Amino acid sequence: SIDSQRLWDSLMAMAEIGPTENGGSCRLALTEEDAAGRRLLIEWCEAIGCTVRVDRVGNLFIRRAGECDDLDPVATGSHLDTQPKGGRFDGVLGVLAGLEVFRTLHDQGIVTERPLELVVWTNEEGCRFAPAMVASGTYAGEFSVESTLARKDRDGVTLGEALDATGFAGPVPVGEPRLASFFELHIEQGPVLEEEGESLGVVTGVQGMRWFDVTFTGQSAHAGPTPMRYRHDALAAAARLIDRLQAHALADESGDTKVTCGCLDIEAASRNVIPGEVRLTVDLRHVVEAELDALEAVFEYELAVAGEAFGVAVHSERIWKSPVVHFNTGCIESLETAVRAQGVPYRRMMSGAGHDSVYVSRVAPTAMIFIPCRDGISHNEAEYATPEHCALGCQVLLEAMLEKAGM
Amino acid sequence: SIDSQRLWDSLMAMAEIGPTENGGSCRLALTEEDAAGRRLLIEWCEAIGCTVRVDRVGNLFIRRAGECDDLDPVATGSHLDTQPKGGRFDGVLGVLAGLEVFRTLHDQGIVTERPLELVVWTNEEGCRFAPAMVASGTYAGEFSVESTLARKDRDGVTLGEALDATGFAGPVPVGEPRLASFFELHIEQGPVLEEEGESLGVVTGVQGMRWFDVTFTGQSAHAGPTPMRYRHDALAAAARLIDRLQAHALADESGDTKVTCGCLDIEAASRNVIPGEVRLTVDLRHVVEAELDALEAVFEYELAVAGEAFGVAVHSERIWKSPVVHFNTGCIESLETAVRAQGVPYRRMMSGAGHDSVYVSRVAPTAMIFIPCRDGISHNEAEYATPEHCALGCQVLLEAMLEKAGM
Ligand SMILES: NC(=O)NCCC(=O)O
Ligand SMILES: NC(=O)NCCC(=O)O
Repeated sequence: SIDSQRLWDSLMAMAEIGPTENGGSCRLALTEEDAAGRRLLIEWCEAIGCTVRVDRVGNLFIRRAGECDDLDPVATGSHLDTQPKGGRFDGVLGVLAGLEVFRTLHDQGIVTERPLELVVWTNEEGCRFAPAMVASGTYAGEFSVESTLARKDRDGVTLGEALDATGFAGPVPVGEPRLASFFELHIEQGPVLEEEGESLGVVTGVQGMRWFDVTFTGQSAHAGPTPMRYRHDALAAAARLIDRLQAHALADESGDTKVTCGCLDIEAASRNVIPGEVRLTVDLRHVVEAELDALEAVFEYELAVAGEAFGVAVHSERIWKSPVVHFNTGCIESLETAVRAQGVPYRRMMSGAGHDSVYVSRVAPTAMIFIPCRDGISHNEAEYATPEHCALGCQVLLEAMLEKAGM
Repeated sequence: SIDSQRLWDSLMAMAEIGPTENGGSCRLALTEEDAAGRRLLIEWCEAIGCTVRVDRVGNLFIRRAGECDDLDPVATGSHLDTQPKGGRFDGVLGVLAGLEVFRTLHDQGIVTERPLELVVWTNEEGCRFAPAMVASGTYAGEFSVESTLARKDRDGVTLGEALDATGFAGPVPVGEPRLASFFELHIEQGPVLEEEGESLGVVTGVQGMRWFDVTFTGQSAHAGPTPMRYRHDALAAAARLIDRLQAHALADESGDTKVTCGCLDIEAASRNVIPGEVRLTVDLRHVVEAELDALEAVFEYELAVAGEAFGVAVHSERIWKSPVVHFNTGCIESLETAVRAQGVPYRRMMSGAGHDSVYVSRVAPTAMIFIPCRDGISHNEAEYATPEHCALGCQVLLEAMLEKAGM
């Protein structure tokens, strides 16, 4: 069984790279911090005899040889990039749990039949380069390599340039290697497991997600002499939309409707200037695709109404659509068997967050395992998971991988 | 009478300094652009024999000698700093109309009994250093010199450092020279004169203004797995406040209640992160002080309710309070006499915008004159006033100044 303390130590060591003021991590995708995190992982893996390959969008494939190396590998992995004020577990746990599986097998001299692969997917978070999971999406054929390399961050730097700058533009064609199966361990990033007193979640799928860039174009004017009725206040229209979307989502008793506005920027903002242009991001989610369609229609309706109410032109662009995903039954069962063996309370559940598994599941049998995180908090420096839960998730991962890889 | 073309040419020449993409001006207070504008004015004034003095907060006092130079001067002026995407007239017109008055008298060899003074007040706009009109306020004793020099811009640069960097930290004690009377010509910055078909406004006072810095502290969390009901969304609370304040102000049929939220910043914003902290600016205005008190109470109430509704802590700080101002009857009458002589439709009115005259009126008899601006638009690159209206306002200024200064 895996070494709980070693796993924890590796998590804490990784958190030393790009540490934030309040105990979190900041390793935005393909920054120098992200690159340093990757180099540390590579060092650890090479020390136990693994080989590393990098594809053209920077995904890392770290292989532990098996007896039959011409078979497709059983894989695990996640991401090492973080939010601007991110936590120490989101993504990182899935990667370092894979490392711990490799280390455990190494210590015990176990060689599996199929080779094993630890994958680090580039730019999962989507906050430096939108959308999220762009590199696993490219691996799975959702995005072309060219379009992915051309994605720009806020400063106009492309993902391709960032790969070159950090030395992670690899030679492996995107889509290689094929994976026999893929397991991803992750923190839940929500409060359900903790609230229900459950130690593990067998993830059967992922809710659908759509991202929008919205622009409100009114007219900037002086705050003092401009009568309220003459105004075309872009921020007032944006606030109306936000407020209506909140009310709509809160009114859904099932709790399945989720709406988030994460970024709002006012063009040439000044306290005594009526905002003339506002850009807003909207994130819509639901576990049922048809309900997500309906939610999108409500959003478009409320956007038009808000613009109308304040004499403000509105424009929205859907920049990303990730349909509802249902994972592979065989992989779910392997995980559930391993989970039951732990003798702890668990549940089957849908994931609220997108994960690289969303895209990987299109090209390989895939499932995920969740552990609780404190207060359900993630994308936050305060994110925390106990050493015991991390170990439990890692042990399940080891057992499911061994089952699939054969000994 | 004044030279309409020369006035227009000087406005257009000043607009060449810090030009913006769409035909406006950007000369934020005490930047290199603002300094260049000041140097151009000084050059023009020295060419007609005026002398320039600068006080410790960078206010420029440009004197045209009179017969009795021991008498306090009759003064005019305004400001040369602009909004980030400001127009070519706001403030600038009042300064260059003063220059045009001087040039007209110079051409005709007229020497007034009292000296005349053209004043350029530092940082009127308040967008680089809050609050607005800080240097005329210091001149009038509202703010201490030390506190004014210590005011910081967003980058942490103090007003004192910006004065040093631009060479406009002068030796004259703040509060000198005393002024016998002060007239300020300005564009209305609102739509009333244009809508009513009037060419001039005799400004009898200025509405009261209060500025607030508001902070909403919720909890950042992941947009996907966090159920709506568990959220502490700081942006949702801010949006609720903005929406309620808009509704409240729009419900006032008199149109005297004005509310503007000009800046909104989300801490560590990311599209898939529920905003944990939001900072918002609020600008409240009314022509009646007691109504402004009531408006502030509504704001504080709605803020508390919005925080409560979304489980978000709120904090507000009133960073500026400028009471309702009523100008000097004698100065109003001088202006009204000069206005009547033009034979154009005019009205007496309150100003919606704050002006340096607000503070100057505390220490010298003061009044203002307004001309219409196109579509009431100001604090906007599209700000425009016709050459005819500029000339008309300048002519009124000349006549009122001559009346007060004596020949
Ligand atoms: N797990 C995670 O943070 N994924 C980012 C994509 C999303 O917003 O769900
Ligand atoms: N006139 C002008 O733009 N003044 C700035 C102060 C205010 O916001 O009213």
